[in-house]
Amino acid sequence: MIFEAKTFCGCESPYETSRFVIFGAPFDGQASFRPGARFGPSEMRRDSWGLESYSPLLDRDLEDIGVADAGDLELPCGSTTESLLRVRRAFTNFFEDKKIPVMIGGDHSMTLAGIQAAAKQYDNLHVIHLDAHTDLREDYLGDPLSHGSVMRRAFELLGKGRIHSFGVRSGLREEFAFAREHLHFYPFVLDQAGLAIDVIGEAPVYVTIDLDLLDPSVCPGTGTPEPEGVSFAELRRALSIFGKLHVVATDIMELSPPCDLSGASTAVACKLLREWLLMIK
Amino acid sequence: MIFEAKTFCGCESPYETSRFVIFGAPFDGQASFRPGARFGPSEMRRDSWGLESYSPLLDRDLEDIGVADAGDLELPCGSTTESLLRVRRAFTNFFEDKKIPVMIGGDHSMTLAGIQAAAKQYDNLHVIHLDAHTDLREDYLGDPLSHGSVMRRAFELLGKGRIHSFGVRSGLREEFAFAREHLHFYPFVLDQAGLAIDVIGEAPVYVTIDLDLLDPSVCPGTGTPEPEGVSFAELRRALSIFGKLHVVATDIMELSPPCDLSGASTAVACKLLREWLLMIK
Amino acid sequence: MIFEAKTFCGCESPYETSRFVIFGAPFDGQASFRPGARFGPSEMRRDSWGLESYSPLLDRDLEDIGVADAGDLELPCGSTTESLLRVRRAFTNFFEDKKIPVMIGGDHSMTLAGIQAAAKQYDNLHVIHLDAHTDLREDYLGDPLSHGSVMRRAFELLGKGRIHSFGVRSGLREEFAFAREHLHFYPFVLDQAGLAIDVIGEAPVYVTIDLDLLDPSVCPGTGTPEPEGVSFAELRRALSIFGKLHVVATDIMELSPPCDLSGASTAVACKLLREWLLMIK
Amino acid sequence: MIFEAKTFCGCESPYETSRFVIFGAPFDGQASFRPGARFGPSEMRRDSWGLESYSPLLDRDLEDIGVADAGDLELPCGSTTESLLRVRRAFTNFFEDKKIPVMIGGDHSMTLAGIQAAAKQYDNLHVIHLDAHTDLREDYLGDPLSHGSVMRRAFELLGKGRIHSFGVRSGLREEFAFAREHLHFYPFVLDQAGLAIDVIGEAPVYVTIDLDLLDPSVCPGTGTPEPEGVSFAELRRALSIFGKLHVVATDIMELSPPCDLSGASTAVACKLLREWLLMIK
Amino acid sequence: MIFEAKTFCGCESPYETSRFVIFGAPFDGQASFRPGARFGPSEMRRDSWGLESYSPLLDRDLEDIGVADAGDLELPCGSTTESLLRVRRAFTNFFEDKKIPVMIGGDHSMTLAGIQAAAKQYDNLHVIHLDAHTDLREDYLGDPLSHGSVMRRAFELLGKGRIHSFGVRSGLREEFAFAREHLHFYPFVLDQAGLAIDVIGEAPVYVTIDLDLLDPSVCPGTGTPEPEGVSFAELRRALSIFGKLHVVATDIMELSPPCDLSGASTAVACKLLREWLLMIK
Amino acid sequence: MIFEAKTFCGCESPYETSRFVIFGAPFDGQASFRPGARFGPSEMRRDSWGLESYSPLLDRDLEDIGVADAGDLELPCGSTTESLLRVRRAFTNFFEDKKIPVMIGGDHSMTLAGIQAAAKQYDNLHVIHLDAHTDLREDYLGDPLSHGSVMRRAFELLGKGRIHSFGVRSGLREEFAFAREHLHFYPFVLDQAGLAIDVIGEAPVYVTIDLDLLDPSVCPGTGTPEPEGVSFAELRRALSIFGKLHVVATDIMELSPPCDLSGASTAVACKLLREWLLMIK
Repeated sequence: MIFEAKTFCGCESPYETSRFVIFGAPFDGQASFRPGARFGPSEMRRDSWGLESYSPLLDRDLEDIGVADAGDLELPCGSTTESLLRVRRAFTNFFEDKKIPVMIGGDHSMTLAGIQAAAKQYDNLHVIHLDAHTDLREDYLGDPLSHGSVMRRAFELLGKGRIHSFGVRSGLREEFAFAREHLHFYPFVLDQAGLAIDVIGEAPVYVTIDLDLLDPSVCPGTGTPEPEGVSFAELRRALSIFGKLHVVATDIMELSPPCDLSGASTAVACKLLREWLLMIK
Repeated sequence: MIFEAKTFCGCESPYETSRFVIFGAPFDGQASFRPGARFGPSEMRRDSWGLESYSPLLDRDLEDIGVADAGDLELPCGSTTESLLRVRRAFTNFFEDKKIPVMIGGDHSMTLAGIQAAAKQYDNLHVIHLDAHTDLREDYLGDPLSHGSVMRRAFELLGKGRIHSFGVRSGLREEFAFAREHLHFYPFVLDQAGLAIDVIGEAPVYVTIDLDLLDPSVCPGTGTPEPEGVSFAELRRALSIFGKLHVVATDIMELSPPCDLSGASTAVACKLLREWLLMIK
Repeated sequence: MIFEAKTFCGCESPYETSRFVIFGAPFDGQASFRPGARFGPSEMRRDSWGLESYSPLLDRDLEDIGVADAGDLELPCGSTTESLLRVRRAFTNFFEDKKIPVMIGGDHSMTLAGIQAAAKQYDNLHVIHLDAHTDLREDYLGDPLSHGSVMRRAFELLGKGRIHSFGVRSGLREEFAFAREHLHFYPFVLDQAGLAIDVIGEAPVYVTIDLDLLDPSVCPGTGTPEPEGVSFAELRRALSIFGKLHVVATDIMELSPPCDLSGASTAVACKLLREWLLMIK
Repeated sequence: MIFEAKTFCGCESPYETSRFVIFGAPFDGQASFRPGARFGPSEMRRDSWGLESYSPLLDRDLEDIGVADAGDLELPCGSTTESLLRVRRAFTNFFEDKKIPVMIGGDHSMTLAGIQAAAKQYDNLHVIHLDAHTDLREDYLGDPLSHGSVMRRAFELLGKGRIHSFGVRSGLREEFAFAREHLHFYPFVLDQAGLAIDVIGEAPVYVTIDLDLLDPSVCPGTGTPEPEGVSFAELRRALSIFGKLHVVATDIMELSPPCDLSGASTAVACKLLREWLLMIK
Repeated sequence: MIFEAKTFCGCESPYETSRFVIFGAPFDGQASFRPGARFGPSEMRRDSWGLESYSPLLDRDLEDIGVADAGDLELPCGSTTESLLRVRRAFTNFFEDKKIPVMIGGDHSMTLAGIQAAAKQYDNLHVIHLDAHTDLREDYLGDPLSHGSVMRRAFELLGKGRIHSFGVRSGLREEFAFAREHLHFYPFVLDQAGLAIDVIGEAPVYVTIDLDLLDPSVCPGTGTPEPEGVSFAELRRALSIFGKLHVVATDIMELSPPCDLSGASTAVACKLLREWLLMIK
Repeated sequence: MIFEAKTFCGCESPYETSRFVIFGAPFDGQASFRPGARFGPSEMRRDSWGLESYSPLLDRDLEDIGVADAGDLELPCGSTTESLLRVRRAFTNFFEDKKIPVMIGGDHSMTLAGIQAAAKQYDNLHVIHLDAHTDLREDYLGDPLSHGSVMRRAFELLGKGRIHSFGVRSGLREEFAFAREHLHFYPFVLDQAGLAIDVIGEAPVYVTIDLDLLDPSVCPGTGTPEPEGVSFAELRRALSIFGKLHVVATDIMELSPPCDLSGASTAVACKLLREWLLMIK
């Protein structure tokens, strides 16, 4: 008799037959300025009830592609190490069950666990990195697991030529130099998505989206808004290309709902997730 | 000796000689997610004192075109039926006095009353519908008067070919199918405004603007922000075309000031109203 | 593997063996000033995870008394009539299953449905009414189902001497006159709770708590804060007395979380609910 | 046909026959920390529509005592001198028309103008000063018209023994010394209101209430909240005594609505104004 | 020529000759629900410029007792272990310089570092623990360094009879049992402060104040508001007694400014710190 | 041992060897609608710690160009005259020390003092004026020093042909007429920046940026948001041209952080300041 909202956008496909599994990583222990990303997953679920599961532009529906929502992990924000462990375990489980894990953040530091698990599961893993920041610091305040170091750690794991970084517009001079030397690096804009396709080919890919890639006018609800970002349309265009790759895992990180009381940022995150899942071939 | 703000943008043209009559419909009983549109009219009046009555771009002034502000209706948010009745009565009175009623909302459900009154007054009424959402549901949670059903009800009243729907980017698959079959339907963008001119010709027109048509970056202060909306410039362009029609009534709906504490959305609504009135031939 | 919060304070007693059933009535169509009570139930559930199920003062635990949480009703805020119907149906079902229904609001108008259902189920029903406002208006803006009229409607149903109104400190002169004549009326304070016990004896009782009874310093998160309210301690004392009555149903209404961003009001509502349930004999 | 709120609590007594005239002084140029008091008058008017004009505790109604609302003065916040001039002129006009002026602020600096005008009109004027702060600085940042100097300026005008300062709990050591020597000074609490009655007798009195006198739990919406203030009940008791004096003018200052989004502080200011006016003999 | 606020309440006593050293611990990695305590120290400094250094009630001034402000530590919120290390080091340094360290939080987990450093420096250390919560969990989500475990860890370090816990009103049944057995435990109220004096005598004492001890009406700006707390007056009374002890270190924790936009909680924290320091013999 | 943020973006170049000196003018006494610009400088400093000093797009670093931060002036918001005096004195001092003063506001009225000081120091001074509003009123509410009059006063001082006004989109009809006659006037857009270069040549220039020039989607945090503004990219392009001029002083005004709780506007102001300083030849 009584009804209660609990999954993202009404996705209630049974786990067994689902292709995608959404789960939340409510962790913001690595927020260097304003915390709040821990509320990202729960707010996305709540506000997603104002979103249709049908995309008119793609003429496709989440109900048709098999999406389960596994809820949120329990993560201790005061222990990055333990939290990474739990996220890694979740990814691993989903991989073993032949699912495409879809993590919703939470701050970007948790992405490292996803990449680690994916690299273990899939040989020759590539990473598509969409972000305003290089995230290539050796460490931040002495902490090697900072959200500002996640791509540096990923680089150490995967090696040269495996990370494809798009849209970055902020970082230290050293980070930009490092990126130019060791990564496929396409800063400032997203119009070179096609180049990644050529390089990656059929290799497995982890696509990580830090929402601060978007211009703060589009998505102010992140911990460290960086002006001069890309538009939703530019991101859509790039994702429609990346969707042709062999995506084995993905995430959308850094939504911080308390930073945008209007709810517009949460709406952006929700719609982006819907459209992106519908684009994956 | 003592002064007090009370009308929109200082419009104090006497009722008798005015061409336009602004009035507020502070109703948000049909808000499906976040209420607050009831505060739209009062906040628009308050913040409009930061807005000049003169439009530099159009080189025209509200003082020259005869605008009265009749204040707000008293509407019981818990009774959609009674509220529609009162709004309909207001429209009818203004029509009888040969005015062009200009409703400021309030949620979109109240537009039905305006269309009903206009259809009674004017034969062969057309409707220009500018919105992010189809609003074509049979009902919402069993309620046929929902703001998600207003265009469906209008269709039942006016019949095929009378509703011209622009910019819609969200809805059920069925709604999009229905729209394609029964409406003049121009989804996603506003660049086909000219087509409506050709169809409508000299017929009387009701123009209804749901502010969520605009991108949430421009107007986050609405109950259900939907990303990927149009820009202010695109809307201006379309309205400059619609302004050549025989507009008999109009409304600007769904401003929810508590959803945007910055006041930017209210400023958008105020300026839009000024420019739009100055564009009506 | 994955965990998700969904019931009030972790109450997961199975429905069949539960004595109490909590359910939400997310309706605020009757808010005369600031809406937001529709978010009361969901915010109480979310924030209740910071609350222990154990009461140190009473040395009792929610886990020991059988509490189920049935989730939220789906209520159309724009139709008070339809919403009352659904709430009434819920109460009736719970009564038939021999439960004590515990409604969390939502605005006070929904209490009428609870009283109607209880009066049908139980002969000689009494009502304990804890509130800042008389709620005895004939109607409000012409609407007889207003939250300002709920006790008037209850009086018409139950007749003289059945309503025991405590703590009221705001109303029209006529309402106070009416209350003095037709109700057991103990305005301003709560120190006469014992008198109700003497009158009611073993009769069945519906206890309705409008949170604006509390001083706005304690619970600012309500739609119409009224200064000079009672303290939490005074309310605790009164409830410890009412807990000895034969309580057949109860509610806690008018929490409006968006009105108090600090979360203190939600914490008050949650703790009050825990303590009150643990006090019912 | 159409209705619009514009006066405090629906007070629409005609100016000519009114005893009291409420007017707003929307000035906050002297706010030393957080501005916002300029919105005090307009928010009090708006929110007062949730307040009955009838006081159940006093069993009296604003409609019975002749209250007009003259709206707001136009004050340039960047010029204290000019603003004081305009406020002084307003007081003078109301005095000439035999009214009791009731100013709603706006920051406390404007009170100086009221006292100046009253001192010109009435011989032997006394001032009851209810405040958290001494307001006895020689100047603040070099400015002698600061809201922290208003009582010092009043002292210079009226001389020793005319200011009765109650409830003060913050100030410089020098200010406390000065107050003890030159004022009737009753710091920290309000329980010595009776002493003022004895001293003042039938002399004319200006009663100025700085809302930060109240504890921040009761009224957080002021520019400089000072903990350990008095309760509403204590203030009520004191005012019921001061109401027996020959009050010739009064004000309620320093409500800063943006500092308390819950609206509770505005509700406190509104109810306080109602009760206080009903208490003046 | 140019001036800039940077120390608490203008305290600029030179480090060498100061008795007290204030420093901030902007860490909220252990916030179990709402983060934000990381902003406590900076907001206290900023808002303290509205606070006089003079206490009228105590007739004493911060300028007279030697207070330096050493600024904030740099703490990585995602690593509790590393943050504890840095806080411990700071305490140790201050102890070596014969100062009384005064930590402003930040969440309560950091107190453990203070107690550890103090126990190393001072034999027979006692702890006065003022808090709404027991903080005696074995662990929280598997984390032994949680802010819900800080007193349990302190107990393991200091042993039985050294912790004096006051005002606690929330916790698990087991925690209350544990407290009753192993601590000097005075739950719910503060009226037994004198008992601690008798037990402790001349022994060195660390006094830790979790601001959620106060009622949420007084201090809503904490991460987990718990209703039915003590008043400022009750806390003042207790501290005036504890001030007679041999206080070797102290802290005021858990102010979360983003949870109370009114600034009232920050004002409470600032004034409390001033009064408390002025009370220490 | 302990670290504390206090300068903009970590700029700690010694005053003597610096080319630029940033200072804050925390004044908002002239805000005609919403105050809050007084918090602009302190919030920019605080949030600038999330901004790198390195600009990847320009491949230049603030550390390389000599930037000192002199902190904030102490300005009495209730006295525009006195505040202008202090700002003028600051500019004069910096000019005497051969610095390029960089003022961060604060409301636009303070720019007058900067222009006055610059005109005294430099013959043949030109002004580049980037703004949404004409700011050419004779006076506002009788006040000739209003932020709506600053360019009129500057015109009276400098004479015809010296002010180059870009991007203006709001004002009275008379102001637009005045601007067209007496100024180099390029309303609505920024694409004619090159024309100013031709006219000004090697003459000294004061560049004043009112942030409301930007579209409210980009920078909602200003006192009077005006829709249809320019994008960050358009402003960047224009500034890259103005950077070739002989800039002797500059300012960035009207950031009002309380109007945009997301922090996005402050981030825009900070990045704009960094990029603009790095562009000045």
